[in-house]
Amino acid sequence: MHTIPYLEEFTKKVFLKMGCSPEDAGMITDVFIAAELRGLPSHGMIRIKDYFQLWQAGRINVEPRVRIVHESPSTAVVDGDGAIGMVAATRSMKIAIEKARQAGTGWVSTRNSNHYGIAGYYAMMALAHDMIGICMTIANPLVAPTFSVSRMLGTNPIAVAVPAGKHPPFVADFSTTPIARGKLAVAAKKGEKVPLGYVQDAEGIPSDDPDIIKHGGSLVTLGGTSVQGSHKGYCLSAIVDIFSAVLSGANFGPFCPPSVAYLPVKEEKVGEGTGHFFGAMRIDAFQKSDEFKSQMDRWIETFRAARPARGQERVLIPGDPERENEERISLEGVEVLAPVQKEMKEIADYFSISFEIR
Amino acid sequence: MHTIPYLEEFTKKVFLKMGCSPEDAGMITDVFIAAELRGLPSHGMIRIKDYFQLWQAGRINVEPRVRIVHESPSTAVVDGDGAIGMVAATRSMKIAIEKARQAGTGWVSTRNSNHYGIAGYYAMMALAHDMIGICMTIANPLVAPTFSVSRMLGTNPIAVAVPAGKHPPFVADFSTTPIARGKLAVAAKKGEKVPLGYVQDAEGIPSDDPDIIKHGGSLVTLGGTSVQGSHKGYCLSAIVDIFSAVLSGANFGPFCPPSVAYLPVKEEKVGEGTGHFFGAMRIDAFQKSDEFKSQMDRWIETFRAARPARGQERVLIPGDPERENEERISLEGVEVLAPVQKEMKEIADYFSISFEIR
Repeated sequence: MHTIPYLEEFTKKVFLKMGCSPEDAGMITDVFIAAELRGLPSHGMIRIKDYFQLWQAGRINVEPRVRIVHESPSTAVVDGDGAIGMVAATRSMKIAIEKARQAGTGWVSTRNSNHYGIAGYYAMMALAHDMIGICMTIANPLVAPTFSVSRMLGTNPIAVAVPAGKHPPFVADFSTTPIARGKLAVAAKKGEKVPLGYVQDAEGIPSDDPDIIKHGGSLVTLGGTSVQGSHKGYCLSAIVDIFSAVLSGANFGPFCPPSVAYLPVKEEKVGEGTGHFFGAMRIDAFQKSDEFKSQMDRWIETFRAARPARGQERVLIPGDPERENEERISLEGVEVLAPVQKEMKEIADYFSISFEIR
Repeated sequence: MHTIPYLEEFTKKVFLKMGCSPEDAGMITDVFIAAELRGLPSHGMIRIKDYFQLWQAGRINVEPRVRIVHESPSTAVVDGDGAIGMVAATRSMKIAIEKARQAGTGWVSTRNSNHYGIAGYYAMMALAHDMIGICMTIANPLVAPTFSVSRMLGTNPIAVAVPAGKHPPFVADFSTTPIARGKLAVAAKKGEKVPLGYVQDAEGIPSDDPDIIKHGGSLVTLGGTSVQGSHKGYCLSAIVDIFSAVLSGANFGPFCPPSVAYLPVKEEKVGEGTGHFFGAMRIDAFQKSDEFKSQMDRWIETFRAARPARGQERVLIPGDPERENEERISLEGVEVLAPVQKEMKEIADYFSISFEIR
């Protein structure tokens, strides 16, 4: 078991050693730690090795000049200059917030970035400014459109954070597939089957094999099958792709660059790097902030009071599970998986910094 | 079989007779006709009776003063003044487009409105202005959040229209449930069962009875079950609810006013009328319009070239089926269902206008 401050210090040191500025290393660390705290270890310590290897392969820029290349009062396109995704994304979301301060809302489409961790982190950045935050990103193409077997889209998450008054904020953060990629990997490692409706084989037949992607299979979009509305999940994923990668000039859909060094750089490019989309809406650009927040309290109370289905204890508000994880994990610390600790130790040794396996 | 111009003239006359201005009657008619043309008759002629009865009951305002009650450079809250939804919505989307012209993007949350027909119509209004259009609305509460049996949300659709160059635009328009309400009604009328995963009974057990809503059941959110990701559909539907009804000050979630006169006005109100949300993003607020459109062409060609699953002929781009319907129906005309024609004839007789049953 490691404490959060211990993992925080370790992570920051790793990125400083890679050559990141203290400010950038801090930004990156904040997103890693948020993933661990919110109970999403698939985007936490387990990913440090991916960034380390991309850095070794010269595929990320640790001294990026993240900059606006086009703008209007409420919009900007940001060039991430090949940055680690967290740096491009944090700076982009700050621009969206600043635009919203001036124009009521701010919308930033970012290109030439890389994998950025959890979408919810950036959406939540808006909360402290009394704004609604929105964030989307493309990801490794592993997902087939409805009626197809071609891997054209990523798990393309959408996150929306809405401030409330006396209650914690509403925070939705979800992939546009039935499950996220990381959960398939966990099932595969355990040798377990997955329910039908997550993945299909190379011909488009539903499969229960979590490893089917290695054999020409693909993830399906939210809805699962066309009978159950998977075309709606396809629409959503396509919208995330267009807003993040076509609007910004990044590599859309199947051209999204891999987020791991063991996959080769793609030969065909249709833009620059990976793309994200950020939005900030100032509450008082719509109504008085206090009135809105008290109405959100009422919304939350109304939905929390919904009658549970038979066998269920309670109805959740989006953000509840992650917030409860955060409360617990900030006290208890994190049980990092043994193989991940081994990787962290190897990286520590490489950089001559300390990491204690616990 | 009726021609489109015949139905157009009839519809316009009905709303003129109700007391709408020629401009408003034209707006309303355009949305009704668009629904028929796009092959969505559940939002076409079949609905005229609902508006007629709401008008008879004095529950809609045919001389509304739709107005901005709060604004910033890129946002507005619009009060629909109890208007027929199409009037409040068309005016709201025009405001969003005008805001986008000035500020790069425009975002309008509208309260005190009513049922507005198809969401896609308003999103598509942005296309002619080289803008991306977005539209959402709340609807009759028939949908239960994940783990619940309470009917808290509507089928809450999301529509996004994106201009392309030589190809037709990308137009996604989908409810955040596995199927729309209208399709359940059709199955019920035919005495057919529906696949599991659309509805649940009063205890939350999956049901194949399309009439289960009349017996305490509910629609489920996109995803179907929590194992298949219905909490993501719940998040989406909740986001539509908050953007449309909390941001605007309308009656959110379970308080959404009924869109038919045979359901009583609700006693408890938490806002004013029904709520919608509109967005317009000027393409050249992000990049050169021509470059974006040619990249969208490439996007469309890339996705159209995806390999079909076994047994499938082709992979669709969002908007393809509706556009193909439009091409066919504009030539062939519309086969209005016999009972709907009967209703139209009754309304025609009431107003002493002509309607020929064909």
